[in-house]
Amino acid sequence: MSIMITAKDNDKVKYTKALLKTKNRNKESKFIIEGYRILTLAIECNANIDYVFINEDFEGKDEHVSFLNTLRTKNIKIYKTTNKIFNDLVDTENTQGILGVVKFKPKNIEENLNDESRFVLILDRIQDPGNMGTIIRTADAAGVDVIIALKGCVDIYNPKVIRSTMGSIFDMNIIHTTQDEAIRLLKSKNFDIVSSYLETNNFYNTVEYSYKTALVIGNEANGINEELVSKSDILVKIPIYGKAESLNAAISSAILMYEIKKYLV
Amino acid sequence: MSIMITAKDNDKVKYTKALLKTKNRNKESKFIIEGYRILTLAIECNANIDYVFINEDFEGKDEHVSFLNTLRTKNIKIYKTTNKIFNDLVDTENTQGILGVVKFKPKNIEENLNDESRFVLILDRIQDPGNMGTIIRTADAAGVDVIIALKGCVDIYNPKVIRSTMGSIFDMNIIHTTQDEAIRLLKSKNFDIVSSYLETNNFYNTVEYSYKTALVIGNEANGINEELVSKSDILVKIPIYGKAESLNAAISSAILMYEIKKYLV
Repeated sequence: MSIMITAKDNDKVKYTKALLKTKNRNKESKFIIEGYRILTLAIECNANIDYVFINEDFEGKDEHVSFLNTLRTKNIKIYKTTNKIFNDLVDTENTQGILGVVKFKPKNIEENLNDESRFVLILDRIQDPGNMGTIIRTADAAGVDVIIALKGCVDIYNPKVIRSTMGSIFDMNIIHTTQDEAIRLLKSKNFDIVSSYLETNNFYNTVEYSYKTALVIGNEANGINEELVSKSDILVKIPIYGKAESLNAAISSAILMYEIKKYLV
Repeated sequence: MSIMITAKDNDKVKYTKALLKTKNRNKESKFIIEGYRILTLAIECNANIDYVFINEDFEGKDEHVSFLNTLRTKNIKIYKTTNKIFNDLVDTENTQGILGVVKFKPKNIEENLNDESRFVLILDRIQDPGNMGTIIRTADAAGVDVIIALKGCVDIYNPKVIRSTMGSIFDMNIIHTTQDEAIRLLKSKNFDIVSSYLETNNFYNTVEYSYKTALVIGNEANGINEELVSKSDILVKIPIYGKAESLNAAISSAILMYEIKKYLV
């Protein structure tokens, strides 16, 4: 059974709609995931799903019926509402008619950066949600142990970020902390800080990376901040052979992560 | 002087609007580029700009005035129209109020794949415009000589593709041809066909690449087609160390292009 809601000023509707804003997500430690695929990934990854909303059209397909039964088996509450009200709760134009609200626990750097951690990715003011999501997905694939998202990055629970992570949002250790705290802790644990920096002449493929490496990727337009540059052990850049001015931030982070990983396996 | 157009059934307006469709772009050998940044890149790259449309709001800024003067120096016609008519000519929600119509010449594989060509990228049914644009941009950066876009790829002159290329659409040699013709010609020129393929156990970083390599990247969901698999000299895959199921197609093509490029410099 799902609980039918037809009033747009219903408390659950209003509460869910509020989670479209970063500040409310942080206050409630909850975020919205939208679409059938990401919901199935959330179940596979044992994400902590608080409740689910579906619209009137969702129940038609066989696979949807069986998915709703899975949710019921897990005692996850399902609210059904009109297409119109549902559309107010999502940020996509062509909705699949299902969303979930997921609880998260803010992660602490001291607990998550442990003695087994060898590969860290530090993100400095990554702004584009698609880039952020793709970077999280690629970091997961490349075996990054911990992602540190510094102040000024787009919210990792932004719906567009979540979609681009393709489920890695549920797997990855992502930590928010200050630059000073991150650098202090990484240095105390003997990490090399390797920063992607266009002004160096040091090509990424001529470096011997340490078995404990923290890679820094900077803002799409401005790169990494000067203080981080000065605290880096190694500055590297990716050569540009053609006429392109630069690489996309998600692309360059992927090339660097996979190069560094060769030294860590 | 710009030519003012206020009637939405004006021939130039109708002609330009038709170029939003692939079939008309191919018929006329013209495509639309939208936004100030891409127009400046088109000028820098000596793209063949046929004419430009601006809306009423565009002329305000100083940099815009000087840019319009550059266009006039180059004898490029400028049409000015109402914001409402202009919005009908573009596919973005927040327009900057300028678009250009660029002429292109369909490129022939025999002419463009010459004896100096050593690095070719073959795209098999890449569907996502953002991926396609990012792949073109990265291929430009990685020193790819020729991109072959096989049937079933998204139109490279789709506005979203163009935006993601960040100007590389004007630089890169991009060819459309059949799979049979591409393979025949590449084999006759002693290229190794290297295909990204998830079902192999051959990791990309354990291969010695040939000094003439054609890398094949396949469809986002289904990979490369079986005939291409069977005609490949080498199948490679990128290892997944974490829990991610796969890599984005633009990401994996970037990792492979930059790895192969190490053998070509």
